[in-house]
Amino acid sequence: MGFTDIRKLFPILDQKVNGHPLVYLDSAASAQKPIQVIKTLKHYYERDNANVHRGVHTLSSRATDAYEAARIKVSNFIHAKSEQEIIFTRGTTSSINLVASSYARKVCQEGDEIVISAMEHHSNLLPWQQVAKTTGAVLKYIPLQADGTFSIKDFEQKVTNRTKIVSVSHISNVLGIANPVKQMAAIAHKHGAAIMVDGAQSVPHIKVDVQELDCDFYAFSGHKMCGPTGIGVLYGKKELLEQMEPIEFGGEMIDHVDLHEASWKELPWKFEGGTPIIAGAIGLGVAIDFLEQIGLDVIEEHDKQLTRYVVERMKQIEHLTMYGPEKDRFGLVTFNLDKIHPHDLATVLDTLGVAIRAGHHCCQLLMKHFGASATARASFYLYNTEEDVNQFISALQKTKEYFKE
Amino acid sequence: MGFTDIRKLFPILDQKVNGHPLVYLDSAASAQKPIQVIKTLKHYYERDNANVHRGVHTLSSRATDAYEAARIKVSNFIHAKSEQEIIFTRGTTSSINLVASSYARKVCQEGDEIVISAMEHHSNLLPWQQVAKTTGAVLKYIPLQADGTFSIKDFEQKVTNRTKIVSVSHISNVLGIANPVKQMAAIAHKHGAAIMVDGAQSVPHIKVDVQELDCDFYAFSGHKMCGPTGIGVLYGKKELLEQMEPIEFGGEMIDHVDLHEASWKELPWKFEGGTPIIAGAIGLGVAIDFLEQIGLDVIEEHDKQLTRYVVERMKQIEHLTMYGPEKDRFGLVTFNLDKIHPHDLATVLDTLGVAIRAGHHCCQLLMKHFGASATARASFYLYNTEEDVNQFISALQKTKEYFKE
Repeated sequence: MGFTDIRKLFPILDQKVNGHPLVYLDSAASAQKPIQVIKTLKHYYERDNANVHRGVHTLSSRATDAYEAARIKVSNFIHAKSEQEIIFTRGTTSSINLVASSYARKVCQEGDEIVISAMEHHSNLLPWQQVAKTTGAVLKYIPLQADGTFSIKDFEQKVTNRTKIVSVSHISNVLGIANPVKQMAAIAHKHGAAIMVDGAQSVPHIKVDVQELDCDFYAFSGHKMCGPTGIGVLYGKKELLEQMEPIEFGGEMIDHVDLHEASWKELPWKFEGGTPIIAGAIGLGVAIDFLEQIGLDVIEEHDKQLTRYVVERMKQIEHLTMYGPEKDRFGLVTFNLDKIHPHDLATVLDTLGVAIRAGHHCCQLLMKHFGASATARASFYLYNTEEDVNQFISALQKTKEYFKE
Repeated sequence: MGFTDIRKLFPILDQKVNGHPLVYLDSAASAQKPIQVIKTLKHYYERDNANVHRGVHTLSSRATDAYEAARIKVSNFIHAKSEQEIIFTRGTTSSINLVASSYARKVCQEGDEIVISAMEHHSNLLPWQQVAKTTGAVLKYIPLQADGTFSIKDFEQKVTNRTKIVSVSHISNVLGIANPVKQMAAIAHKHGAAIMVDGAQSVPHIKVDVQELDCDFYAFSGHKMCGPTGIGVLYGKKELLEQMEPIEFGGEMIDHVDLHEASWKELPWKFEGGTPIIAGAIGLGVAIDFLEQIGLDVIEEHDKQLTRYVVERMKQIEHLTMYGPEKDRFGLVTFNLDKIHPHDLATVLDTLGVAIRAGHHCCQLLMKHFGASATARASFYLYNTEEDVNQFISALQKTKEYFKE
């Protein structure tokens, strides 16, 4: 199946916006859904909907089977050792907060260290600020180079035997580049620290193997990888998850309850109190089937190549600043054009049917580093084509002319 | 629109299970979805899907408008003072845990008291056990009468000036009866305590007016009221929510970020870190439209009447024990038949197309009170008819015969 055929599986792309064919370049914020995922949700609610786990009737069995099958798909997709290591959450943010609230608050004592970078999305920054505040741990930042990246050497110098947790994005949502997570994991482990990886921007674009990376925790969101909104995943090594206490308490995660004591079910259910996000998980499973059918290697190459192409085209535009280093970007490019405020830029592009994002991209620290209050970001995914890039470049040029007048 | 027409709006009910027309009597666990809600999800993903709040492009504006319009619908539906009092969560369990983790841990000190009943669902019990453990507060139980209910007098005797929080279900998921929440709120407030109400079983069945009840927090789930899975609501009085700290930190809830400090957005967004459950909230909004179009008073009367009818019919069956008092049940009845284990009962009923639930219903304390390890539960909603009841009774009788042999 070629990428032109793949695009046809996304009904949302077949529409005009403000009189122009939609060019959707905001997949880093939320990806679109192929017809398979949409049909799965419809089918679930029309045939199988019921609460899971505790029901013995047919619908409940079907819902439970589909929900747990989705967990196995996720487990295989990121090559976890066991589906017990897969916790369904509301999204990357919830996954990281779970580790911060449960694991980090338990292992961090006053004077211990948490190491992150200033490149992190707020979701991988604020939770650690909070852990530092409540435990007295020190939040240390890997220094950033001019281009916004950090060196493995600078990282290594920040990690000490007091470091309990390292947390880093696999792929930056502003720079689009990949961090050397595997090397970082080895360094963290040498010092007895655990490493958490924010995979929100990586899992949609590259093949992730959590065992090969040897990360301790890995978080990602369904909605950025063609799945429904409101579903995400926390992967954790079993031996760490087993030591952790749940942070939400309710039905479905209980073994036994007394007036003043309770015991939890085994993994993964002890972390899934309450009715789970059933349709969301099932939809995510079908999104994974879809991505695997195409092949993550094929998707990675497509996204990188398209980004290379757009970068080459953007270089032709005068007074256009791109942020980040000259290396492979995994599907996104962040930039500013002339003195045009990125919100204005995005607004004018929208009148031409081109959807990009403008703002701080939940990365205020990185914006400060670049001395920019905001930037524009175009992000690409498997349904985007060179034609999209051409329309985007043409719209950029028109916008530039528009503001010149 | 009559209830026979209403039933036709639920595609899932038009199927055979094990060769028999499906009789779905498990709505207290999860309700079915009308075609409007299913179509809304499809439409959202086919036309409008995008991340909300920070996008200036058309799809993002549409998604944001629909998401925030859903909040206003929820606010009006339960008669909150303002939509700022409506927090979207993953469900009732998350809503209660939010109040326990943020509000309760802040206000409770050693020796303070939390008052609940042993009738509560684990989701309204475990979070308070945890607060008691971490703060040194005392968890006090309102004593239950033989029929599983408690008296307002017994409640009043438990509340003292050390009581900081009262938490109670509006309608019990085992007994099906309503607790006197309004009176309880007045008593709690007299002693300076806040009251949290678990509305998972009430909001689908009765008109709830949080201002009239004068409760401080009210929690409920979308999936039990014809909405999608994975979406729920926490209502809180603005002055209390404003005092509370978020428990999840990430994108969308931040005002300003520095290396070691951050400030939050105003209500309700400070509690909604990360990409929200966008499609879920929009689907819930349409479920509310649907329920309001029929009228909650009409739904309440239908559900009560159907339950009265099933109770009358069940009384004719020998050796059938129903739990709970002889008063109006809001759509559910919990029972045991002979010495048949409820799981076996549910399994045989399923072979006859009848879906009921069997187990402890996340109410182990109430099960102990009744001396039952498990019970069966049949629950009814607006799409159920007398014909469903007749099939259920007939299936019960057949099952009884089957086990006699």
